[in-house]
Amino acid sequence: MNVTVGQRQRQYRTVSYDACRNAVLLIEQRLLPHQFQIVAARTFKETAQAITDMVVRGAGAIGATAAYGLAQGARTFRSRDAARFAAHVEQVYQTLKAARPTAVDPVNAMDQVRRRMSAAQTVQEQQTLALAAAEAFADEDVEHCRAIGRRGAPLIREGMKVLTHCNAGWLAFVDVGSATAPLYAAQAQGRRFHVFCGETRPRSQGATLTAWELAQQGIPHRIIADNAAGHFMQRGEVDLVIVGSDRTLGRTGEVANKIGTYTKAVLAKRHGIPFYVAIPLSTIDWNLKSGFAIPIEERHEDEVLGAWGITQAGRRAYVRVANPLSGARNPGFDVTPAGLITGIITPAGIFKPKELWAHRRELGWAG
Amino acid sequence: MNVTVGQRQRQYRTVSYDACRNAVLLIEQRLLPHQFQIVAARTFKETAQAITDMVVRGAGAIGATAAYGLAQGARTFRSRDAARFAAHVEQVYQTLKAARPTAVDPVNAMDQVRRRMSAAQTVQEQQTLALAAAEAFADEDVEHCRAIGRRGAPLIREGMKVLTHCNAGWLAFVDVGSATAPLYAAQAQGRRFHVFCGETRPRSQGATLTAWELAQQGIPHRIIADNAAGHFMQRGEVDLVIVGSDRTLGRTGEVANKIGTYTKAVLAKRHGIPFYVAIPLSTIDWNLKSGFAIPIEERHEDEVLGAWGITQAGRRAYVRVANPLSGARNPGFDVTPAGLITGIITPAGIFKPKELWAHRRELGWAG
Repeated sequence: MNVTVGQRQRQYRTVSYDACRNAVLLIEQRLLPHQFQIVAARTFKETAQAITDMVVRGAGAIGATAAYGLAQGARTFRSRDAARFAAHVEQVYQTLKAARPTAVDPVNAMDQVRRRMSAAQTVQEQQTLALAAAEAFADEDVEHCRAIGRRGAPLIREGMKVLTHCNAGWLAFVDVGSATAPLYAAQAQGRRFHVFCGETRPRSQGATLTAWELAQQGIPHRIIADNAAGHFMQRGEVDLVIVGSDRTLGRTGEVANKIGTYTKAVLAKRHGIPFYVAIPLSTIDWNLKSGFAIPIEERHEDEVLGAWGITQAGRRAYVRVANPLSGARNPGFDVTPAGLITGIITPAGIFKPKELWAHRRELGWAG
Repeated sequence: MNVTVGQRQRQYRTVSYDACRNAVLLIEQRLLPHQFQIVAARTFKETAQAITDMVVRGAGAIGATAAYGLAQGARTFRSRDAARFAAHVEQVYQTLKAARPTAVDPVNAMDQVRRRMSAAQTVQEQQTLALAAAEAFADEDVEHCRAIGRRGAPLIREGMKVLTHCNAGWLAFVDVGSATAPLYAAQAQGRRFHVFCGETRPRSQGATLTAWELAQQGIPHRIIADNAAGHFMQRGEVDLVIVGSDRTLGRTGEVANKIGTYTKAVLAKRHGIPFYVAIPLSTIDWNLKSGFAIPIEERHEDEVLGAWGITQAGRRAYVRVANPLSGARNPGFDVTPAGLITGIITPAGIFKPKELWAHRRELGWAG
């Protein structure tokens, strides 16, 4: 999507590949929104480290990063010995898998690359296919997000006020994003609308990443405290809510997403405001039978007890906000029941949450 | 209430008076929770400035501060000329009134002091009565909060998990507080319970002031992001919600309070969790006929766009968290309708919100 660097607006992907240097190029997300920088991971180990260190985050983005990382690692092999090559690729695979052990996207992405590689015999052919497969994975990720945008765009009508939560934008994918895709598509179709970015404490991804994306894209928006969403709904200032999802249960229609999503859904229901969840098919979990079975990660309490930002001197710093003698609880996600969700926007269309199971074949169910 | 200074636990009031120095003593709330300091306002002008600068905040606390400030100003007058004394007192009154022009408590408090002064003739007698009236105002504020505590304490049962929002604690009054009063009373009665302090972005009064109070008082508690309240309710980890109020409509039972209160009330209703509002009688507005008529102050966007805290070097600093190119909306308060409120805890008893009007005589209605 668009990024203005100096005076010029340019197009970037969150993750891309530089064939000359055999490097994976990543937008350094830890510096955003205060600094825009592309970093080059020049070895597969650097690529794995970038995933571990959260240089890149978001399901689609780390999937593509791992896919490129596998191709990158495969391409550094300098002999024709197919057996030794297979062992080398296995080592690259395990290194990248271990970079974010609980995430499923890197594994799925790398499996796709390996399947493609297995069609070839020689080391060189396999190396060529690995890169082609990684590129195809990244392009597919973008295409899926564009499809979400096409499906969701009609929901965004002229003059609407749309509330978002957290960041399910292009920074979380290779490009375009999930929750943001309908916004970008509606903008491309010439419609004007206004976005409230929920701050999304404790990590403030709404105030930092989503607001940055929308500003770069020229979409009018305001950041609000998470506490203010109910007030604006009560005063008739919110027409639609769109969020992303970390895991959507195909059997029940329940949605696990960033902490605070459930609250927004409860408020939207009370005020009769449509509440949509935008997802790529890869986030659908066809196995779990109840949202209560989804493990809710408790993150470090320092996230709640303070904030990261830029001081007046321009330095990045953490400030402790809370009482020094007090601790915190910090669940990272919550679960929104199907009854609060108006629709789930997928690349294959918009479905009621309870309809996912009936449409499981077109939604990529493998079982 | 209790404050541990060095190794010793001592008792403090938020506002008090030092007769030897004719000084108003205030807990410097802008330094909390990172530093505990009592500042002495040595002239009525310094007292007014302390109100303006938010050294002291909260309805009861600024009322008592203004009452003491009026007595303090009256006592610096050094002649027996009653007419000139009256003019001097008027000047003190206007100075203190202008310190926080939209607040009603300083005016009510000073009017009470002036009525008491008018019983005397000589300057010296009036000076004596002014101080006695200010002391009486402060003591009454404490007594009202204690009465809220007695009324509300039975709601806090052994082992309960209680959610609070913002700070309606003793720092907002002369002592004891409103929303915290039932907690402190239940603790004094030997019951054990756990408190979730909602962080209360953007100014984080829950994470700073309420958490500090509870830590000093030895009440087990954890700070949570405002986003997490719904999740904990959904998981059965919240048994009761108690909040304060900036203005409660006596005719409708609607409650204006810190932004985010409405959201907590909506969530509590959905989960069948009792939602109580604790108020001194002075916050009841008997005139307004609708919550939509309550003006909602929009505060500076910098509150939403960043946070104040302590750096690792121990310095107080503001960090900008949000995207530098984005703005914010920042409503300071919201309005909770009567239908979401289980009961209103007053010094005169607990009432359903819609019952306030029927009980208006015992609740201090002057009309």
